[in-house]
Amino acid sequence: MPVDRAWLDRAKEHQRHLTKPPGSLGRLEELAARLCAIQETLRPQAAPRRIVVFAADHGVAEEGVSPYPREVTAQMVANFRKGGAAINALARQAGADLRVVDAGVVGGEGVRDGTANFVRGPAMTEDDLRAALALGLAAAEEAARDGVLIVGLGEMGIGNTTAASAVTAALTGWPPARVTGRGTGADDATLARKVAVVERALAVNAPRADDPLDVLRKVGGLEIAALAGFCLGAAAARRAVVTDGFIATAAAFAALRLAPALGDYLFAAHRSTEPGHAALLEAAGLRPLLDLELRLGEGTGAALAMNLLSAAAAAHVEMATFDAAGVSDREPPRPTVTSRPGGTARRQGGEA
Amino acid sequence: MPVDRAWLDRAKEHQRHLTKPPGSLGRLEELAARLCAIQETLRPQAAPRRIVVFAADHGVAEEGVSPYPREVTAQMVANFRKGGAAINALARQAGADLRVVDAGVVGGEGVRDGTANFVRGPAMTEDDLRAALALGLAAAEEAARDGVLIVGLGEMGIGNTTAASAVTAALTGWPPARVTGRGTGADDATLARKVAVVERALAVNAPRADDPLDVLRKVGGLEIAALAGFCLGAAAARRAVVTDGFIATAAAFAALRLAPALGDYLFAAHRSTEPGHAALLEAAGLRPLLDLELRLGEGTGAALAMNLLSAAAAAHVEMATFDAAGVSDREPPRPTVTSRPGGTARRQGGEA
Repeated sequence: MPVDRAWLDRAKEHQRHLTKPPGSLGRLEELAARLCAIQETLRPQAAPRRIVVFAADHGVAEEGVSPYPREVTAQMVANFRKGGAAINALARQAGADLRVVDAGVVGGEGVRDGTANFVRGPAMTEDDLRAALALGLAAAEEAARDGVLIVGLGEMGIGNTTAASAVTAALTGWPPARVTGRGTGADDATLARKVAVVERALAVNAPRADDPLDVLRKVGGLEIAALAGFCLGAAAARRAVVTDGFIATAAAFAALRLAPALGDYLFAAHRSTEPGHAALLEAAGLRPLLDLELRLGEGTGAALAMNLLSAAAAAHVEMATFDAAGVSDREPPRPTVTSRPGGTARRQGGEA
Repeated sequence: MPVDRAWLDRAKEHQRHLTKPPGSLGRLEELAARLCAIQETLRPQAAPRRIVVFAADHGVAEEGVSPYPREVTAQMVANFRKGGAAINALARQAGADLRVVDAGVVGGEGVRDGTANFVRGPAMTEDDLRAALALGLAAAEEAARDGVLIVGLGEMGIGNTTAASAVTAALTGWPPARVTGRGTGADDATLARKVAVVERALAVNAPRADDPLDVLRKVGGLEIAALAGFCLGAAAARRAVVTDGFIATAAAFAALRLAPALGDYLFAAHRSTEPGHAALLEAAGLRPLLDLELRLGEGTGAALAMNLLSAAAAAHVEMATFDAAGVSDREPPRPTVTSRPGGTARRQGGEA
């Protein structure tokens, strides 16, 4: 599953001939090179693309960890399906197809009606975990079959920042207080409750840090497990995977621990305001593309980042070379002439 | 020319009803609110849009301040016109119309064949300055007449980071070494030469810090002056103006000093790797949207940022309200219940 690194070199060699100073497109050049390596071509594409939103409920929501009632998960799924959510607008703007997968919304068709409350025991059974992972793998296979080249991660689930914090703390060993934030807008009391809930969940379940599946099962969520499966399936099909916020990144991080080669396929869309997100990105060795104080999830950050992938691919594929355009390349480096005593640079105080 | 701030409040009130936690779209919400205020509507649009690249040569190029020969300015203008440059690819990707204006390329149809070398005297005459400003104003009027709602700043001119550094140092009083960088890829010796050249230019011309037109005339460039005129014309026509890299921002900064109300219309696309750029953005009170290590200019950063404006407008205009979507809004804040002695939060060490 790792990409063939020779393609990175080929891509960089191609970029050296394009009519711009070397490196002047900054991170767009790195994005284009990575797309070349993933797609094994010097003409990478950033479309067709699709964002898949996995939705599920969380038993832990009954601990009062969110300012929104649990019913909002199902209501937002309906909103996604009617086209009225932020991700609908942003996916349309980014030219991305949008799919919604019910991984376990209460009253829906998912694996089960939400997870069990993980402050009292594991969030799900082994069978539930397998079913959730399979949902994600199936969505990745479907995307690949449909010719999708770039997939984006989306999620919805009242209570799922608490699960993401628990997964992050369990996988990294960081204290819950470091990786637990306000989510959709928790006040101080709710934030304190969230931290306590995560601590309790870890104490009660003792997830094994070196076993990402154990972590996902005990303190994860059905949409988080599905997203982990989705990442693995997409990378296996050699598709670029664009992360989103804290929850999607926690899922990608668990998947990365299972299969480190996934890292070759991952593009970190953005850094959210959740404190755990920056830490998680760093642990995963991912540099976010955007830093716009987003904290919505749903795949909204993935949609925004997809435009950057398009721009990177467009510049790489469409630009003329110096030769073809008749543009002079850099002059060879000049000999250094700063030692003339009393010369201009000196008289003017130049900091040579 | 200032926007009517009541529209910012109206926009924020509208956003409060959209199906997402308040503030969760981060800076996209601020972008949308500003577009509402500029366009005086709650249904802002980020298209049609246009990037105008102003090109000119610089007499100071003869001081060896760039690794590229002066001829590259005209060659790149030809490249823009044939569609082979980075900005062609990125403008296409962003759905922006691209125009190139020759403000003073050697051998072209601009104001004059490049500026005079400002280490020996003023870069241009009063008449040249007026003509360059008029070019920018005319391009803004044309854009407005064509129904363009968002304009982006682009520039090309071998040697123009040196001019931008001189303009920045002159307007801010900062030492040239702080605001002079490697541009298209200057080596250490060239960088030292650039700093010395800027110092000499300021000493020889003594531009007046409180007179932006004096600064532009003495140590600016024809494309920089044209860009300043373009900013002012676009704001006068109530169009959003998206900056680009260091040179475009220096032009916008000079224009902002002439007409502070321009600030209501300016969107800072990105922060480049030029050291003067970050300082200039801060002085202008502008927060860049992107930080992708770009250092190409041409309007490439403006093109990327335009996609963010589209996304912001799309979310603002297309999202459903809580009422319309049947989604429950936040619950009223719960009473704080952390004082129960020996309660759960305490036992688990919650950092309440």
